[in-house]
Amino acid sequence: MGRSLASPESVGALAARIGAEIRGDANSQIAAVASLTYATTGDLSFFSDKKFANVLATTNASAIIAPANVSLPTRCVHIVHANPHQAFATLLSQLFPETADFNGAALSIDTLAKIGLNNVVVHENASLGLGSYIGAGTVVHAGVRIGNNVRIGANCVIYPNVVLRDGVVMGDRCIIQPGAVIGSDGFGFQLTASGWMKVPQVGTVIIGDDVEIGANTSIDRGAIEDTVIGNGVKIDNLVQIAHNVRIGEHTAIAGCAGVAGSAIVGKRCMIGGAARIVGHIEIADDVIVSGGTLVADSIREKGRYTGVFPTASHRDWMRVAAGLRRSVRPPSNTNSDSKDAAAGTE
Amino acid sequence: MGRSLASPESVGALAARIGAEIRGDANSQIAAVASLTYATTGDLSFFSDKKFANVLATTNASAIIAPANVSLPTRCVHIVHANPHQAFATLLSQLFPETADFNGAALSIDTLAKIGLNNVVVHENASLGLGSYIGAGTVVHAGVRIGNNVRIGANCVIYPNVVLRDGVVMGDRCIIQPGAVIGSDGFGFQLTASGWMKVPQVGTVIIGDDVEIGANTSIDRGAIEDTVIGNGVKIDNLVQIAHNVRIGEHTAIAGCAGVAGSAIVGKRCMIGGAARIVGHIEIADDVIVSGGTLVADSIREKGRYTGVFPTASHRDWMRVAAGLRRSVRPPSNTNSDSKDAAAGTE
Amino acid sequence: MGRSLASPESVGALAARIGAEIRGDANSQIAAVASLTYATTGDLSFFSDKKFANVLATTNASAIIAPANVSLPTRCVHIVHANPHQAFATLLSQLFPETADFNGAALSIDTLAKIGLNNVVVHENASLGLGSYIGAGTVVHAGVRIGNNVRIGANCVIYPNVVLRDGVVMGDRCIIQPGAVIGSDGFGFQLTASGWMKVPQVGTVIIGDDVEIGANTSIDRGAIEDTVIGNGVKIDNLVQIAHNVRIGEHTAIAGCAGVAGSAIVGKRCMIGGAARIVGHIEIADDVIVSGGTLVADSIREKGRYTGVFPTASHRDWMRVAAGLRRSVRPPSNTNSDSKDAAAGTE
Repeated sequence: MGRSLASPESVGALAARIGAEIRGDANSQIAAVASLTYATTGDLSFFSDKKFANVLATTNASAIIAPANVSLPTRCVHIVHANPHQAFATLLSQLFPETADFNGAALSIDTLAKIGLNNVVVHENASLGLGSYIGAGTVVHAGVRIGNNVRIGANCVIYPNVVLRDGVVMGDRCIIQPGAVIGSDGFGFQLTASGWMKVPQVGTVIIGDDVEIGANTSIDRGAIEDTVIGNGVKIDNLVQIAHNVRIGEHTAIAGCAGVAGSAIVGKRCMIGGAARIVGHIEIADDVIVSGGTLVADSIREKGRYTGVFPTASHRDWMRVAAGLRRSVRPPSNTNSDSKDAAAGTE
Repeated sequence: MGRSLASPESVGALAARIGAEIRGDANSQIAAVASLTYATTGDLSFFSDKKFANVLATTNASAIIAPANVSLPTRCVHIVHANPHQAFATLLSQLFPETADFNGAALSIDTLAKIGLNNVVVHENASLGLGSYIGAGTVVHAGVRIGNNVRIGANCVIYPNVVLRDGVVMGDRCIIQPGAVIGSDGFGFQLTASGWMKVPQVGTVIIGDDVEIGANTSIDRGAIEDTVIGNGVKIDNLVQIAHNVRIGEHTAIAGCAGVAGSAIVGKRCMIGGAARIVGHIEIADDVIVSGGTLVADSIREKGRYTGVFPTASHRDWMRVAAGLRRSVRPPSNTNSDSKDAAAGTE
Repeated sequence: MGRSLASPESVGALAARIGAEIRGDANSQIAAVASLTYATTGDLSFFSDKKFANVLATTNASAIIAPANVSLPTRCVHIVHANPHQAFATLLSQLFPETADFNGAALSIDTLAKIGLNNVVVHENASLGLGSYIGAGTVVHAGVRIGNNVRIGANCVIYPNVVLRDGVVMGDRCIIQPGAVIGSDGFGFQLTASGWMKVPQVGTVIIGDDVEIGANTSIDRGAIEDTVIGNGVKIDNLVQIAHNVRIGEHTAIAGCAGVAGSAIVGKRCMIGGAARIVGHIEIADDVIVSGGTLVADSIREKGRYTGVFPTASHRDWMRVAAGLRRSVRPPSNTNSDSKDAAAGTE
């Protein structure tokens, strides 16, 4: 599930790139990078967050970047580094240098025919990257930007000014409303002494069949593994799907909702408008999340979940809000009550 | 107010398309489709939600798709179907096959003159569909995509990369900030045994005079009737206006707000930033909704309304949230308290 | 910090444009417009909101539009007007007539070389306005629209369909994800008897070095002074940054967040996903705002702040919400309890 290297490299060579010592076989060959959970034999991974300590015991990674004091399974070569995520990010930027997303060539019907795309309608002012493929019956509207090595299935409609960055894969009969962006970089940064260091986002987005994606919605590419949108999923306008998210089949997500990084949403869920799902949690199949609700913990059982402060007249709200605040503050500190927690129109 | 058929058809012919039986006059002629509330003589509608039972008595529809056990007024022909919304969607997809939105032709000043558009500035890399019209003094910037049969008034400014899909109507002196999408499909799906079935969105968007629409805002076309934005309305960035919404004159809607399907917002309202208005409710004239508030029920009287959980230090918040949760749970279940309802930055 | 006039003008001439009387020296020369806080000698400003009364004593403005009953420092010429903001807006629309943002010319490598832009990659279907500059090593992808007098630093990547309106300034090594809009008009309107009057937005957006901006995010230009994004700031997808906002260095803002007009956010802050910061407040350095939190008042001390209603099963939520409502209502009015504060999927 991870991202393959252009050509395999030894653990020794990789460690040398970041000046790290090795415990184990320096000649072990690495063919891909992957996160601990998804790594298989031949993969390089890293360990930097205690949350994943239980994954260490079962990971199939062949090499792991980890601090010196961490005990790894004997089957894993240990690349010793005090800051594993930063070291991993450094390796990624060397192994996967930012290539030219998109080639920017405008497409004519002639060009399409030359590259073997028949029965495809591509309007003027659209762009198609190198190595990309569009299935029969698909319509690509004006202003659509398709990166390199993108694969679009048959009978899709890609409305104007949609952007699909490098490597995005889409099934058949998908409809992408105008302005949607698929495959933008995930929000992945590592804090260093000089500020945020960008962690290259080397995964992509895999979209199933019969998916509809709304206007100006954005779906980030995976950090290492891919972001996955299952068959039959329907996503409304202005929805944010962060990196590594997985949305189960036939789930519907209403407008202005957001799903944070690495969250997994089950099948046949209904996520209400402006609902928010925090990162790294799991939501079971057949869950209904009410509009405006922030889901902060995993939901293990199907059912309907809600968390919305009830609306009232502003005067009533001030009393309730002041009461809630008072309940947690020393009595001497009651003067900073709920003065105005309501934003105006600006 | 509904959408006219290309040519009138008898109830008998329409029923045959979906294999349905008829109670009443099979020769009754249908000229348009409409929802129960807005249907007039000659219109076909459907009844599938008890919420609208009271509308049945007064609807002017000439024919209604409804389950067998529903009693219709004698003036309505009854098309009998166990799943009226699905049957209606099936009919819509036959009656209004997805036509080629946009023709994708790039525009030169010459082309514009040929089609009678004078005193209009259209920058390069813009597209204009067949049968569309642009009023004198209007500027259409680069990358703007205008579908077929769009009508734009005089002295408007349409900033770069805006998309107006088929049939959108806009008054005079409107300003559309970059990246806004107007006329995208509403989020209309019918649940079937094999997943979500798309309900064709056959309405459009009608925008009055002196309207400003913000960057990357999206306004969906109506499902059957149109989405309507009144004169003088100002809408900020990243706002979602769902299908069938009606916004009254001179209402202002701040950034990141969302108005769900079929909601009706009055005149001269001020909707704060990130406020949410749920679907199928009505908000009176001169209502102020504070920023961040979710409005869940109709508001009948003018005034200011608020519903925002008060901010506190994280430590204080944990105490308040835990208290609220405890109040609804059996005492034995207090261990899963408010561990971390706060999303991090990822 | 304000916006300079094309050529200086006397207070007398400016007052004559709006039919206003003067108290003080009509020959005093005005070279720029600015807000009270930022005005320096030679600047014209206005006073219309008591909130800024304390700024009056210290402002360096040379002339101020203010109601007759306001006492100004003797160093300021008083332009007397009953509605100062409206008068100021009228002046702005005369002094800074809407010019042609963008010239819409498509760019070829030849054109770029002619205008002295070497070592720059601009893909087809991009547009570059007059007087704009792109630094060496920067890549401008297809469909990018760059207005007039824009300045982009070196080694930036501007992904497809990004829009930068007139006058935007960006440092080195910035990455702008697809569909982002920078420099759109702020949401500035003045209520008049005939509806909202647009206040021309004459500031721009200044972006530092090493900034990343997410897909479909929008950043408004300043109303008078500029919107400022500090060095090293990282902004995720679908974020709204309103006019006059200032974001301190190395602050990270996660997806779907919104910062309302004139808010000032400190350095090294972390603003969680879908968090909202209301206008005209200040947030100290090193503040963490949890996801989904609405920050309604200034935060003076570093630390973590949260305000999110805890999620529960819908049944439990109904009990908590009803309890909160009951606590502020007369006992006779308990029938309109928390019927359905949760938006469905539409």
